[in-house]
Amino acid sequence: MSDMLNEKTRASAWFRELRNEIVTAFEGLEDAFGGDEPAGRFEITETTRQSDDGSDAGGGLMSVMRGGRVFEKVGVNISTVYGTLGIRAQAAMAARKGLEGMAEDPRFWAAGISLVAHMQNPHSPAVHMNTRMFWTPHGWWFGGGSDLNPCIEYAEDTAHFHSVQKEHCDKHGTEHYQRLKDWADEYFYIPHRNRARGVGGIFLDDHNTGDWEADFGFIQDIGRAFLPAFVPLTEKRMAQPWGEVEKDKQLVHRGLYAEYNLVYDRGTKFGLETGHDANAVLMSLPPMAKWV
Amino acid sequence: MSDMLNEKTRASAWFRELRNEIVTAFEGLEDAFGGDEPAGRFEITETTRQSDDGSDAGGGLMSVMRGGRVFEKVGVNISTVYGTLGIRAQAAMAARKGLEGMAEDPRFWAAGISLVAHMQNPHSPAVHMNTRMFWTPHGWWFGGGSDLNPCIEYAEDTAHFHSVQKEHCDKHGTEHYQRLKDWADEYFYIPHRNRARGVGGIFLDDHNTGDWEADFGFIQDIGRAFLPAFVPLTEKRMAQPWGEVEKDKQLVHRGLYAEYNLVYDRGTKFGLETGHDANAVLMSLPPMAKWV
Repeated sequence: MSDMLNEKTRASAWFRELRNEIVTAFEGLEDAFGGDEPAGRFEITETTRQSDDGSDAGGGLMSVMRGGRVFEKVGVNISTVYGTLGIRAQAAMAARKGLEGMAEDPRFWAAGISLVAHMQNPHSPAVHMNTRMFWTPHGWWFGGGSDLNPCIEYAEDTAHFHSVQKEHCDKHGTEHYQRLKDWADEYFYIPHRNRARGVGGIFLDDHNTGDWEADFGFIQDIGRAFLPAFVPLTEKRMAQPWGEVEKDKQLVHRGLYAEYNLVYDRGTKFGLETGHDANAVLMSLPPMAKWV
Repeated sequence: MSDMLNEKTRASAWFRELRNEIVTAFEGLEDAFGGDEPAGRFEITETTRQSDDGSDAGGGLMSVMRGGRVFEKVGVNISTVYGTLGIRAQAAMAARKGLEGMAEDPRFWAAGISLVAHMQNPHSPAVHMNTRMFWTPHGWWFGGGSDLNPCIEYAEDTAHFHSVQKEHCDKHGTEHYQRLKDWADEYFYIPHRNRARGVGGIFLDDHNTGDWEADFGFIQDIGRAFLPAFVPLTEKRMAQPWGEVEKDKQLVHRGLYAEYNLVYDRGTKFGLETGHDANAVLMSLPPMAKWV
């Protein structure tokens, strides 16, 4: 397997470009909301990954907006990390992917964008999006997805979110959307609560058709689907009246979201186990949550 | 290995007795606090464990007090569960304990008490206590511990908590306390935050000296240490004045507590994986928590 330096550079650059578009759009929503409170703005922090031996291990850019008019807390992380996988991560990856040679050459490289938005208005759905490229000397793949997490569900919002995902998947053939939707239903399921964490979306992992260019185009389109799938829902709901009953629903739903992320989420586990900045990995956790 | 029916019955009965003492003491603290708000009372629910094949799998008693004068949320669970371990739990247990024959005869039985208290007053420390007996045809053991989780640390409170633990451990020989304290420091550590979740306590697992009677006496004394270690701290702090700054510290500290329980806690993982009522397993989660 080649080092794929060119591909890695292009993937990293794309995740950064997508991050910039999203950050601009979200600050635009804060401005559009109006009112006397100041419009929310992102705070930006460089993050670093610690390697056990102190060698350069990569890092990223964490952008968090807290206490905005529209967004109660939203984080948009990008990172490019590399090094060697520890024994446990090697074993987990070798087992999951059937990769040979991980123990002999445990190098890895990964880049991605990860986003979670928790909204002020309980009618306005929370959302998650993440796409990434993973490389080892024994294989590369893309993964990611996007799912909608309303605490008060509106069928028309769910339909809009899914239709935009479908439209973007369909550019690469009509066989993808249903498979990725089903995969999201399975992946974003909370077994111990016997329920989905939200109303679904799309998810894929281990994506490698052998054609990097085509697969990269597909992962880019999953990223491009995000703003048109999400922003219109925010515009529709962000000023809808709400009271304490709705806020309470939202806080309890966020507890469920935190449970999912801490117990099951693959990216969270990988991030914590490989020593990335915990504040960046756990930026997805809600600003405030409730358990009854 | 015998079925140890007599020992199982005695252990189960002890956990219930300890639960009754604690519930009475905690409702007494609610009464003692006084004031116009009603004194908090426990709500009691029978919980059941689901086995895959629908056979009897045990259950327990979940006692939760919410919104009291002293306790914002406190749960005291007892349970006695049994059945056969699934493939994953078998493998995990065989690997951790070096047990042979788990795959051929994967029966298990476990009983225990588990308690977490989240307090109204941020000066009043949160606390956790859990003791349990575990049986398989291939071996039995006791485990558990107790640790103090203040968001505002007072050296004198920490010293009192530890001295009562030591006194009870010392009844069984002076060699135990330091080992159990060190074990708690290791066990209640949050690697991704590079910090302890609280100010420690005691912890042990896989405790089997070959003398069930002596080991049961030891686990009973760990249980008996709980009220004298914790109640005086509550009495001292429950009426201490506090403001928004302290409450905020408490909410953030609870976020840390939730992280620990969902990512690392052995009992939580075991409970969720073996199908016990999720509300009972996750009763330890804070009523409200915050992530910045």
